[in-house]
Amino acid sequence: MTPIRLGMVGGGAGAFIGAVHRIAARLDGQFQLVAGALSSDPDRARASADELGIRSYDDFTQMALAEAARADGIQAVSIVTPNHMHAAPAAAFLRAGIHVICDKPLAATPAQAAEIAGAVSEGRARFFLTHNYAAMPMVREARALVQDGALGQIRLVQAEYLQGWLSDDTHSKQAEWRTDPARAGAGALGDIGTHAWQLAAFVTGMTPSHISADLSSMVPGRPIDDDARVALRYATGAKGGIWASQVAVGQENGLSLRVFGTRAALDWRLEASEKLVLSPKDGPAQILTRAQDRSASFRTPPGHPEGYLEGFANIYKDVAAIIRGDSSHAVRVPGLADGLSGMAFIAACKASAKQDSAWVEVAA
Amino acid sequence: MTPIRLGMVGGGAGAFIGAVHRIAARLDGQFQLVAGALSSDPDRARASADELGIRSYDDFTQMALAEAARADGIQAVSIVTPNHMHAAPAAAFLRAGIHVICDKPLAATPAQAAEIAGAVSEGRARFFLTHNYAAMPMVREARALVQDGALGQIRLVQAEYLQGWLSDDTHSKQAEWRTDPARAGAGALGDIGTHAWQLAAFVTGMTPSHISADLSSMVPGRPIDDDARVALRYATGAKGGIWASQVAVGQENGLSLRVFGTRAALDWRLEASEKLVLSPKDGPAQILTRAQDRSASFRTPPGHPEGYLEGFANIYKDVAAIIRGDSSHAVRVPGLADGLSGMAFIAACKASAKQDSAWVEVAA
Amino acid sequence: MTPIRLGMVGGGAGAFIGAVHRIAARLDGQFQLVAGALSSDPDRARASADELGIRSYDDFTQMALAEAARADGIQAVSIVTPNHMHAAPAAAFLRAGIHVICDKPLAATPAQAAEIAGAVSEGRARFFLTHNYAAMPMVREARALVQDGALGQIRLVQAEYLQGWLSDDTHSKQAEWRTDPARAGAGALGDIGTHAWQLAAFVTGMTPSHISADLSSMVPGRPIDDDARVALRYATGAKGGIWASQVAVGQENGLSLRVFGTRAALDWRLEASEKLVLSPKDGPAQILTRAQDRSASFRTPPGHPEGYLEGFANIYKDVAAIIRGDSSHAVRVPGLADGLSGMAFIAACKASAKQDSAWVEVAA
Amino acid sequence: MTPIRLGMVGGGAGAFIGAVHRIAARLDGQFQLVAGALSSDPDRARASADELGIRSYDDFTQMALAEAARADGIQAVSIVTPNHMHAAPAAAFLRAGIHVICDKPLAATPAQAAEIAGAVSEGRARFFLTHNYAAMPMVREARALVQDGALGQIRLVQAEYLQGWLSDDTHSKQAEWRTDPARAGAGALGDIGTHAWQLAAFVTGMTPSHISADLSSMVPGRPIDDDARVALRYATGAKGGIWASQVAVGQENGLSLRVFGTRAALDWRLEASEKLVLSPKDGPAQILTRAQDRSASFRTPPGHPEGYLEGFANIYKDVAAIIRGDSSHAVRVPGLADGLSGMAFIAACKASAKQDSAWVEVAA
Repeated sequence: MTPIRLGMVGGGAGAFIGAVHRIAARLDGQFQLVAGALSSDPDRARASADELGIRSYDDFTQMALAEAARADGIQAVSIVTPNHMHAAPAAAFLRAGIHVICDKPLAATPAQAAEIAGAVSEGRARFFLTHNYAAMPMVREARALVQDGALGQIRLVQAEYLQGWLSDDTHSKQAEWRTDPARAGAGALGDIGTHAWQLAAFVTGMTPSHISADLSSMVPGRPIDDDARVALRYATGAKGGIWASQVAVGQENGLSLRVFGTRAALDWRLEASEKLVLSPKDGPAQILTRAQDRSASFRTPPGHPEGYLEGFANIYKDVAAIIRGDSSHAVRVPGLADGLSGMAFIAACKASAKQDSAWVEVAA
Repeated sequence: MTPIRLGMVGGGAGAFIGAVHRIAARLDGQFQLVAGALSSDPDRARASADELGIRSYDDFTQMALAEAARADGIQAVSIVTPNHMHAAPAAAFLRAGIHVICDKPLAATPAQAAEIAGAVSEGRARFFLTHNYAAMPMVREARALVQDGALGQIRLVQAEYLQGWLSDDTHSKQAEWRTDPARAGAGALGDIGTHAWQLAAFVTGMTPSHISADLSSMVPGRPIDDDARVALRYATGAKGGIWASQVAVGQENGLSLRVFGTRAALDWRLEASEKLVLSPKDGPAQILTRAQDRSASFRTPPGHPEGYLEGFANIYKDVAAIIRGDSSHAVRVPGLADGLSGMAFIAACKASAKQDSAWVEVAA
Repeated sequence: MTPIRLGMVGGGAGAFIGAVHRIAARLDGQFQLVAGALSSDPDRARASADELGIRSYDDFTQMALAEAARADGIQAVSIVTPNHMHAAPAAAFLRAGIHVICDKPLAATPAQAAEIAGAVSEGRARFFLTHNYAAMPMVREARALVQDGALGQIRLVQAEYLQGWLSDDTHSKQAEWRTDPARAGAGALGDIGTHAWQLAAFVTGMTPSHISADLSSMVPGRPIDDDARVALRYATGAKGGIWASQVAVGQENGLSLRVFGTRAALDWRLEASEKLVLSPKDGPAQILTRAQDRSASFRTPPGHPEGYLEGFANIYKDVAAIIRGDSSHAVRVPGLADGLSGMAFIAACKASAKQDSAWVEVAA
Repeated sequence: MTPIRLGMVGGGAGAFIGAVHRIAARLDGQFQLVAGALSSDPDRARASADELGIRSYDDFTQMALAEAARADGIQAVSIVTPNHMHAAPAAAFLRAGIHVICDKPLAATPAQAAEIAGAVSEGRARFFLTHNYAAMPMVREARALVQDGALGQIRLVQAEYLQGWLSDDTHSKQAEWRTDPARAGAGALGDIGTHAWQLAAFVTGMTPSHISADLSSMVPGRPIDDDARVALRYATGAKGGIWASQVAVGQENGLSLRVFGTRAALDWRLEASEKLVLSPKDGPAQILTRAQDRSASFRTPPGHPEGYLEGFANIYKDVAAIIRGDSSHAVRVPGLADGLSGMAFIAACKASAKQDSAWVEVAA
């Protein structure tokens, strides 16, 4: 099958998430990267493009127009810039009829989010958001179990995303923009809290109606949240919590989700991502593996560990299928609605924090 | 060494915690149970006492007086009645000069707690509260590590106590009084939340100044909380959370504590109680075992698992030493202050819940 | 119920296993230690007995006669001496009509084992051997699962007992006699290998017909095996292995058993002794806990970890029941047959090792 | 950088390992698959090639000649046929000056292995063998720790590779040739035992001098081994074991390695492949992660799980570097020596098994 022609905005040399998108895009052979505006610094953009052997643009607006005009132009673009630089390129490519695969969170501000929503609503191209964890096989199986009613009525939801890498006032390239309110919009809340929020919603099929948040900047002088504790209330009466922290010393990438229903509970942890523990109300807990996964979101037999990159690649694989006209799995690929929900989560948390953790309604 | 003569109030046939106290008392050979008012039902009291081969009393008041008058009377008494029946016997024995080892929480109401505090203040005998988890070796080592500064400044504290046994409207003897507001005072909050509260305070050496609570009765018709989510703020700027639930399906007795400081983090879980994971800010996590425990709170070499009963017995062992005049380890045995702190925790949570989770100061 | 009067041979101050037996005996309140010949050094014997408040004897022969003659003499005796000193006291007490609870392995030599067997065959008293691990709840459940056919036909059996404490030429009291061929008879093979051998047989209900052994003395100059690798063949065609080592650095007390059948597999590990993983041929693995245990070999609800001492106490509890005339659980208490099987295992391993690991038949 | 042009022999539609090689080859963007003789059935070969968009050959001999003659011909070829079909294509491509990346084990017979060795010795191209597990980051770190002396002198080595998928007489395509002596050469021994053998040698830097093997065909009627227990003796005095089984019900892909030295021990398990437990003789065990890995064999930060495919890709990445002239990491890529060692292991096991597990020297 001919690979889909892909472009990229951001992701120049030294970028973390750009490299991840590139691997994810090529892992299943469904995409070929052919063009990029890889950096806002034109020299760096060109050097990075040369290294990758792709067409280089100084500017994403120019790129959108030029690629749309080429017969062999890109069919989709990956946007892997800092949060505040998602909206402008996303809108430009969408309006040029080029599908957008955008890194999360959706944007740094509600206004930027609205800009993307507006462009999506014009209907010229599709928009996808890489909430990659929701594409891992056992997470998809968790969702299927909830949908099947295996958990009964859900009562308790607890999602955590704990990292320790920002426990100091470090100044790496990765750390710098993530702790800058103007570029990131939110700190731990946006960078990893939205992952936890989306993961919980993806698996449970429910979104909290109200939240109460306590946001902290644990590192002295940090102008953005680095620890967020959020209590959740669902319209169904279920309760829950999200805890996102980047000062949790010793935690590398501690994402986890626990869901308790009237009939059974689920426990999934990224550090053992190929296992899903299902604990029925009565009887022993079961360790589900890919042998039980019905989503077929993998490439190798159970016991051959797949992980973060393969999860990311699952999104690209599904996007490729959608672009090729097969929408059978479209429902499982995160998109604009997930992005807007994440922005609503961030906004509600900030509002609650300003009111000393008062319960705040989450915009639908 | 001659065993210390012990009495018991409550703990008749079929009682769970009474049997635990008896095993804990005799495990190290330091106590001999000789008398009891084992039930409020005189026939049952007598039958239970006969079974144990001890003196029986119909009434704890009479027992306190009679035992205090005997040359070979009891030196200490274990109180293992439901929460609302702690205060009266505790006060009676304390005033009779007999040391009291009381189950937690301290009482069902603040008035009852005050009654105990009053009797303790008269100084005729000592009062101990069986927050048994704080007596387990790796918990004691956790506290020692914090005291040594191994964690640096503490930023985050998360304690959980999750059980699933009350996820239905069951009617066992154990469940019955625990879900009755009059006898229990509080539900999950009192029965297990106070354990989590005390455990966090014991290890960190800090008590939150303010809390925000969301209390639920997940089982329809239940007149008491069965799920409690509590956010914590410490005067130092540290944040934390306590989550106590008795509707967490599949959880048998899921007590855990995580503490994150500026230099390192600790993770302890009851289900693997002989391990303590210490994660330094830099460098690999370490799995501490009793080989590293400095409290010497065990009987067998590392690798020979000790557990719940041995932890309980550690309290009895320390109490025996104190009664015998060796106060070197007195500081690690929970007592009145822990009990009052637990009552303040419950009161603050109830107050916060009534104000829709407003932050409430915890009485010192 | 009146406790059974118990004596002890060996187990003076500083002894490890003597203290364990004493705790196990009193944990369930079924025994009262009243007499002892606690050391071959009369002064030490007396001092230890005084410390425990029991009758002291200089000599176990004298003790057997004297106690048998007393109206309030001991009904059972625990023998906790080094291996070469099991036979003489065991025979003396058995012949005096006093039940014997003997530590493992049965003896240091086949002749000593025969001496015990002879005394048992006279039928005056019962003989029990403290293969304590076989008394832990999940091990008993493992056996029940095999008996129920849950595993189908057993194909593979792997038992390991790995310790690291003898990886050096240390000279502790515990290490000293265990590395002396005269007193121990065998090294890792006898001290821990016999546990693994008995555990495998207890759970599977099968004993290998042939073994092939490679014995090593890894520590230079050590006159006894400290590492034993044994291949197993069963008459049914099943295969297996036992690996016992005391030079496995970093291992505290690593006992484990894995059994694979045609229908399912079992995995039990002492370090997580309250779990038993049952892996069906098809479908997810299940984590069994005491909630699934049908042996009722515990005192507290699932999730309240019991361990080594409670397992040991389960033997004493069953012995008490047998002495009191209730033989309903007699089949699960190890005794002479287990001891003789262990001796046959040691003998076969030594014979195989002498013939460069040739397959050797294990005496029935 | 321009991708290296790659060919493939075997790996037509439905093949497991062919698909894995293709993903591994493209994951880091270093290779582009351009030609193949994907099946011995010409129609299937062509259909598979069309699907992949590559040049198709009916015959690998013809392919080797044709590609060598093209200016844009392949620079390397992946051989992913059944074991008995490695030698002929390997020799053809090597002699055509095309580098060979061959799946393991080296061959089905010693004669075939010799044929490959002969072609390699002619020196026209390089030969690599995909013992992929040795390319996983924590395995490489394990080897580095041994080389650094962190373990002291190695005493005990235990490698296991347990699978359950052949516990029945199943007839899948994968199962069929693997249980056919003519095509596979050996069963569990060759398919997974050689992985365990190579892994142990890779990490420890030592190869056993003698082995004693017990081979079984547990499934009735199976003409090849499906369970292999092998005892190991090293010239240094170290001892060890390899256990490879494909009838270990419930095991998906249970590869593990434990190494015990005089100073520390290592424990690595594929199911938690991103962790390496280092247990010093004294002091707590440490959980090493990629944060401690010095091989830089990964693409994402620690905590973002990489697994089987990324390990496989590490080999391709190193091969690409070697082909491009950077031999700095050549030492860590398995090749002919590993393959011949694996063949010697198989031969010694078969010889030992024929002599009822006699100790047999392993050909150097």
